[in-house]
Amino acid sequence: METFTRDLLDAARGFTPADAVFTNALIFNPFTMDWEQGNLAIKNGLVLGIGDYTGITEYDLSGSYIIPGLIDAHVHIESSLLAPREYARLVAPHGTTTVIADPHEIANVAGAEGIHFMLAERSGAGIDILYLLPSCVPATPMETGGAVLDARDLKKFIGCDGILGLGEMMDVSGVLAADPFIGEKLRLFPIRDGHAPQLRGNDLNAYILAGLQSDHECTRRDEAEEKLRRGMYIFIREGATEHNIADLVGLVTRNNAARCCFASDDCHADMLFERGHIDHCVRQAIGYGLEPELALRMATLSAAERFGLSDRGVLTPGRRADLCVVDDLRQFVVRKVFVRGNMVIPSAFMPCTRPPSPFTCRIPSADELRITGSGEARVIGLVPRQILTESLRYTVAAQEIPDLHRDVLKAVVCNRYRERKCGIGLVHGFSLKQGAIASSISHDAHNIIAVGTSDAEIRTAIDAVICSRGAMVAVAGENLTILPLDCGGLMSTLPYAEVVQQLKDLHTVTKNMGSIDDPFMYLSFLALTVIPSLRITDRGLFDVRERADIPLFIQ
Amino acid sequence: METFTRDLLDAARGFTPADAVFTNALIFNPFTMDWEQGNLAIKNGLVLGIGDYTGITEYDLSGSYIIPGLIDAHVHIESSLLAPREYARLVAPHGTTTVIADPHEIANVAGAEGIHFMLAERSGAGIDILYLLPSCVPATPMETGGAVLDARDLKKFIGCDGILGLGEMMDVSGVLAADPFIGEKLRLFPIRDGHAPQLRGNDLNAYILAGLQSDHECTRRDEAEEKLRRGMYIFIREGATEHNIADLVGLVTRNNAARCCFASDDCHADMLFERGHIDHCVRQAIGYGLEPELALRMATLSAAERFGLSDRGVLTPGRRADLCVVDDLRQFVVRKVFVRGNMVIPSAFMPCTRPPSPFTCRIPSADELRITGSGEARVIGLVPRQILTESLRYTVAAQEIPDLHRDVLKAVVCNRYRERKCGIGLVHGFSLKQGAIASSISHDAHNIIAVGTSDAEIRTAIDAVICSRGAMVAVAGENLTILPLDCGGLMSTLPYAEVVQQLKDLHTVTKNMGSIDDPFMYLSFLALTVIPSLRITDRGLFDVRERADIPLFIQ
Repeated sequence: METFTRDLLDAARGFTPADAVFTNALIFNPFTMDWEQGNLAIKNGLVLGIGDYTGITEYDLSGSYIIPGLIDAHVHIESSLLAPREYARLVAPHGTTTVIADPHEIANVAGAEGIHFMLAERSGAGIDILYLLPSCVPATPMETGGAVLDARDLKKFIGCDGILGLGEMMDVSGVLAADPFIGEKLRLFPIRDGHAPQLRGNDLNAYILAGLQSDHECTRRDEAEEKLRRGMYIFIREGATEHNIADLVGLVTRNNAARCCFASDDCHADMLFERGHIDHCVRQAIGYGLEPELALRMATLSAAERFGLSDRGVLTPGRRADLCVVDDLRQFVVRKVFVRGNMVIPSAFMPCTRPPSPFTCRIPSADELRITGSGEARVIGLVPRQILTESLRYTVAAQEIPDLHRDVLKAVVCNRYRERKCGIGLVHGFSLKQGAIASSISHDAHNIIAVGTSDAEIRTAIDAVICSRGAMVAVAGENLTILPLDCGGLMSTLPYAEVVQQLKDLHTVTKNMGSIDDPFMYLSFLALTVIPSLRITDRGLFDVRERADIPLFIQ
Repeated sequence: METFTRDLLDAARGFTPADAVFTNALIFNPFTMDWEQGNLAIKNGLVLGIGDYTGITEYDLSGSYIIPGLIDAHVHIESSLLAPREYARLVAPHGTTTVIADPHEIANVAGAEGIHFMLAERSGAGIDILYLLPSCVPATPMETGGAVLDARDLKKFIGCDGILGLGEMMDVSGVLAADPFIGEKLRLFPIRDGHAPQLRGNDLNAYILAGLQSDHECTRRDEAEEKLRRGMYIFIREGATEHNIADLVGLVTRNNAARCCFASDDCHADMLFERGHIDHCVRQAIGYGLEPELALRMATLSAAERFGLSDRGVLTPGRRADLCVVDDLRQFVVRKVFVRGNMVIPSAFMPCTRPPSPFTCRIPSADELRITGSGEARVIGLVPRQILTESLRYTVAAQEIPDLHRDVLKAVVCNRYRERKCGIGLVHGFSLKQGAIASSISHDAHNIIAVGTSDAEIRTAIDAVICSRGAMVAVAGENLTILPLDCGGLMSTLPYAEVVQQLKDLHTVTKNMGSIDDPFMYLSFLALTVIPSLRITDRGLFDVRERADIPLFIQ
């Protein structure tokens, strides 16, 4: 963006009127972490400055606070179940003006074509959607997703508008082992996000030395403090199942707020609609005792600096006029939002195109779903409010499954891209008392995953997912409730209000089936083989720490 | 620098020994602005990490502090009177491991060839010398120096090793008027240093909007605070005549220390030798009450971040093992220095080559030095410890000059590059009681400048400068004391110890002549037409605010 023009300089000097002037507000300055009363002038979508200005339009904001536009440092838009433009339409009124997204999910389904779809959706989105390229497609060499992206594939995106760097490097052991294929990817971009849950000590040093610069997987304060100290940016996450603000926000001080950001990572549309987005993170952080100025530093300039976005994050001359207005710092309800100087107003829904979405699989037969044997079995244990799982052991007999009393249910993964046998496991924590649920969202390969109380209902649910070419489904006897995900099997092509309603309907149904809250979010992470401890893939149970397929029963 | 190698990663993990481990020290962490006790391991000149390590060499640093190598955010190496490699040999033992230098002086004398000379001196310098390209050669269109560098000339340096960006943009009025030639230069580099003494309000907004990112010219705290608030990096300068730490250091807080750095700007070799360099700034700042951790943040990571040097400034894995060791934080005497893991030890003097150095001028005739007339005259007033000058008025008669009683002396500037008439003016503040001094250093054109108590001694001094093809000269009757500056007329080719001794000799002589301290430093700024208020050029008196030549006597 050219700022050295006579037109802009004359306006900045006050010789000609600004496009707009915001008067009488307290303006937050992340550089000084304090507030300034003054008149903020903007022109051509850029900040002219705070000073003595008159504008063609003037907004009297007496009693309000102006804050630079909020930035999400790490998000998978696909997890909202919305296509990017619709996602933007939902989060913009919450004050979000920039998101750093990793199109990792669609890339696992549709490869480079999926990324191109996400890039095309930037135009007309209103807010600025910037992408990091998925570094781990597939997540591990053992995965069986829809695509493989090597360094050569990623290199083709260098220089593309909207591409900032390399997304979360989840293959920690590959990095530590100096895997040359990973080295090739790391060398492509100077900006590289990390992903290193529970990594500590010398191995953490090695991971950072390899070139990874951030982490959004901390769940403990001492872990986050060590990573900060070793030079990582810490993205404190408040996602769907991952609620880390309560545990981590105590580490943020005036010394280190510049190295801490907020990230939503994975949030369904209904959560964004009801709770909000980064504004929700700010409210949560303040609620847990963080000074508002530190929370706002994290939500604005810290994220801009982390990604080298020197054109935003603070309202100084020449930067983007991205800003939001609130009346009360603690309640932090965003009243008005401006993106490049334009007020965000409710806009019309724009239908999106669809990326490729293969569903070249079959419904597993009744025989295939059968478990045989008995004894001490490995059971995946959900951890409330986390995406980590525990590796539990239960003494079970196959014919006693489902064990509703002990909440041990069958979990099934069907390869979505190939005709294959499915993987079967056991899971504790869903608390379903009847029926089954299934989804085409299961990180990262996005095979079809189901959990249920009967094989018949599990098969019905999987069938419904395949017939819709992607969906979230709840089956209870004859009743089928469905949210179609016709955009890559991951996202809906509907307006967000309809998606929110369908999600509510699904949640009502699953609640009636006895389920915990948000079962689809937990379900979607059951197959994620890069987060400890026990997972299920289309091959069966997987031990993350051992990086190995393991049998259901302990021999 | 490649960090993704099996060799380095294995060492970081602790599988193989590090090259060196520093044990038992308190290690400063600028990210957290605190200290950590631990073992710091390095290999191949890079930090492996702090952790559980053994090294081929181990340094027990019990009771000491380890600090990342110090960085000077803005310096003109020429002002030290030393060629760059010799400058490096002098400052390295003081803990300086990186300097950001603007070769503005030699560029005014020798153009691009001068810059190439400075670049060639990087090799073998020990420390890292990085350059910003001089943006204002000449300083203003009216200057008559040895070279003109336009955007086309500067563009040829893009991509050169050691070139970081564009140096201090001194032509503030040209920027504000949207001068297209300035715009061309600004567009060349994303990193652009500013220079905006006393600029405030809307015009400051415009200057920042134009793309200038830093300022090292603040003399008042409210000025520095405004610039910080508007998004500029503030380099707090402790130079030869510019001592700004006392007035400015109170503005530095934990909120903004990341936006503040130290700069030496212009320091003679003797000052560096006796006081130190950035270590001196740290001591001064602490002495004026700044918390040591904030001073150290400024001296290390803040400067690295300002210039996008993500490979240094903090001792985290993968960064350069540039560090220094001190025993006491308040005394801050640097005991050991390591650059890329190698200990700095006294090294042999290396003679330098010489850049082009034109002296195509003549000694002014006795007639030319004569002043005629009487009445109210404009007199340049020195301001102690500042490079600003005052515009004074004295009622004088020509035949009464020098007026030793009122300390009004004659000042003369001879164009060094062309046969021309010289410029004559009057100056108050040198306090010379006898003799004359002359120098080939006079910012920025580096014409020959002289001040003295008699025309004969002024002519002798100028003659000596020309005969030496550059020098600082003091003449008192028959006695001539000379420091030859045979490297571009700005620097000496001698070892620093000899230059320091010759400077001492010069200062002893000028002291005996009645002079104030450091008269050559004040002399060198008398012709600097970009700093208020009154200056002298080879055309005569110059009013900086009016940007106009003006007569000696008020008509």
